[in-house]
Amino acid sequence: MQAELISIGTELLLGEILDTNAQYLAARLPALGIDLFYTSKVGDNMDRLTEVIERAWGRSDLVLTTGGLGPTEDDLTREAIARVLGEESSVDPELERQLREFFAQRSATMPERNLKQAMLIPSSRAIPNPRGTAPGWWVERQGHIIVAMPGPPSEMQRMWEREVAPELERRTAGQRTVLVTRTLKTMGIGEGHVDELVSPLLKSTNPSIGVYARPDGVQLRIAAKASSREEAQRLMQPLEEEMRRILGDAVWGADDDTLESAIGDLLQRNHLTLATMESCTGGLLANTITNVPGSSAYFRSGLVAYNAETKIAWGVDPEIIAQYGAISAECARDMARAVRERLNADVGVGITGVAGPDPEEEKPPGTIHVGFDAAFTVPQHVSYQFAQGREAVKRRAVTTALALTRRVLLESKGHEPV
Amino acid sequence: MQAELISIGTELLLGEILDTNAQYLAARLPALGIDLFYTSKVGDNMDRLTEVIERAWGRSDLVLTTGGLGPTEDDLTREAIARVLGEESSVDPELERQLREFFAQRSATMPERNLKQAMLIPSSRAIPNPRGTAPGWWVERQGHIIVAMPGPPSEMQRMWEREVAPELERRTAGQRTVLVTRTLKTMGIGEGHVDELVSPLLKSTNPSIGVYARPDGVQLRIAAKASSREEAQRLMQPLEEEMRRILGDAVWGADDDTLESAIGDLLQRNHLTLATMESCTGGLLANTITNVPGSSAYFRSGLVAYNAETKIAWGVDPEIIAQYGAISAECARDMARAVRERLNADVGVGITGVAGPDPEEEKPPGTIHVGFDAAFTVPQHVSYQFAQGREAVKRRAVTTALALTRRVLLESKGHEPV
Repeated sequence: MQAELISIGTELLLGEILDTNAQYLAARLPALGIDLFYTSKVGDNMDRLTEVIERAWGRSDLVLTTGGLGPTEDDLTREAIARVLGEESSVDPELERQLREFFAQRSATMPERNLKQAMLIPSSRAIPNPRGTAPGWWVERQGHIIVAMPGPPSEMQRMWEREVAPELERRTAGQRTVLVTRTLKTMGIGEGHVDELVSPLLKSTNPSIGVYARPDGVQLRIAAKASSREEAQRLMQPLEEEMRRILGDAVWGADDDTLESAIGDLLQRNHLTLATMESCTGGLLANTITNVPGSSAYFRSGLVAYNAETKIAWGVDPEIIAQYGAISAECARDMARAVRERLNADVGVGITGVAGPDPEEEKPPGTIHVGFDAAFTVPQHVSYQFAQGREAVKRRAVTTALALTRRVLLESKGHEPV
Repeated sequence: MQAELISIGTELLLGEILDTNAQYLAARLPALGIDLFYTSKVGDNMDRLTEVIERAWGRSDLVLTTGGLGPTEDDLTREAIARVLGEESSVDPELERQLREFFAQRSATMPERNLKQAMLIPSSRAIPNPRGTAPGWWVERQGHIIVAMPGPPSEMQRMWEREVAPELERRTAGQRTVLVTRTLKTMGIGEGHVDELVSPLLKSTNPSIGVYARPDGVQLRIAAKASSREEAQRLMQPLEEEMRRILGDAVWGADDDTLESAIGDLLQRNHLTLATMESCTGGLLANTITNVPGSSAYFRSGLVAYNAETKIAWGVDPEIIAQYGAISAECARDMARAVRERLNADVGVGITGVAGPDPEEEKPPGTIHVGFDAAFTVPQHVSYQFAQGREAVKRRAVTTALALTRRVLLESKGHEPV
């Protein structure tokens, strides 16, 4: 099946928003055995939109569009599809009922212009969108398919996962070659070195291997083509095992794993709890940890101590601050100790530093100290300098804190099962 | 001048990398008075690449391509352009010399396959690329232009800034109309309603108005075309004033303003400090507030109270939790009061709820209560239900907290200068 992607919206052409939908969908087509040959963006202009959809309809089996399903006058996707297929749109009573109900539940009355979101053409059926007012369109005629999805990623992604992908999987079952990928995530080894370590494996063509440098470490991507997902996985397994053997503890996760989820697993497996005290990262560490569902099982609580006064009020030793300053490895370690004791957690993590743009305590922006404290091992810290803008400094500090936590937990509490 | 963007590379179609080049270029064309009508991605396939470039060459004055200039067999951009123009490519001796020098400087010998990077056709001249081995191509014939740039963003961006943009600026000087945009950001009104409110203005074509739904509220974009930036701004001003009159306090900022920066301004203007106690948002509120440079001037500190025990330890009334539960408007308001008193801040904000995926206290995921407490006004709260996945729930809760804070500050401490 040959597919084509069309992202719709003038704001995309003006570069005002980054089109993440195209990448999201492109990354998910290979596993369905669907080849993506073209993707394009087009603005909210009826003629150009019609031209692009018409060409896609002509040359591709499957056309996926995102955007242009809103209630406003420049949301033209439905109209353009109707024009290309030469069909009349009309309001679908059931869709209208659902739409009015959607507003009623939010105790609002539906603006009349939202009615266009209840429109259908003979060749289209509505795709449910519980997250918004715009249902998608599944359009099918003479073996060609157009799937029109809303632009907001949370709405589009749910529609793709729950409605569109399963249906496409049914359609392509049997007559497809699937491409299945597996990504191993590593920490603490450079791209070149990883490349050297696995070089004997790099010659393999199916599965193939790619090495990529990412902000949170080097990743290795195994990709296998086969007639079924199971078959592809059988092809990949020995290669993955060999890589894990070569790379050992450097591998901290796979595919959608995150450092925070890896740490969550380690903590739960060892029945440990965690507490945090952050200064310059302003809550990003706690927020990252609590992005993991179920983190309340091991995350005790966190403090954002944005000044020395609060640090001391929460148990940091005033003499340490007096002697070394609030921006010091000693303070980071004592923040970890204080919060661990204060919230009686097993593990405490402290971060202090200078997010920037201005220096503090004569220390330059990007100065970071991460402290780790636990009853079962000696206090530890990591200090470094990384001046790349306030938010990047915060992100890097949090990645460092998570990596340090993982390393200490592995060293003192044993290994993850491979 | 009508432009078209083509991003080249199979890895883009596989979703392995996000195409940031397209957004980078799209965002820079309007100021040059260049209209972008189409952008597309195409893989490393000679027939499809030729088809896409041929269509672009036919319908656009300016075609910008990125990628496919490398030394490997699947780098086909030069060959495809030569084929579309029906011209012969040959090695340019000067380019070959520079290329061999590039490798010599890195004490390496040039792989012979890199020689293709020294190729030119009669209608093309090389664009210098000091950051890599791939020079760009400036192709010009019968008033049509193709600019082929390398894919790596650092190489592409330098080539654009130093070589391509200045040349295009010369070309479009005088006969140029620039497009200037202004974005008004609103809260608390749905897209459909905003659209209705401003509908009398939507007919305007220059300036034109677009209405877009964003996670932090509905945005209105005014875009004006004129011979100069000043002229464009003159065109936009009355329209912006009229929109601000119609939408009133719903407008919380413009262009790059964020809710957190708007609140930071309000707090500083009124010499107020802020403290936060969060449960389900796990630190995202504090993190968002502290993303604003200089926020330490008004952000006292924050607590991430991830369980009832910690909430009580930090001053929340146990009877309120016993009577209403930790997930209640009453608890959110008391969290705001407790943290305000505990950290002696002027304003306290509390968030409690269920991030999901699992319910808590029999309350469904997406249940959110935001509390506000200050000495200068009565306690307030906002409660709602928004089930869209854990991270989206957290983001929406924080946006709601920031919006509530802004509203109360405006009502009790006077208005922002428009």
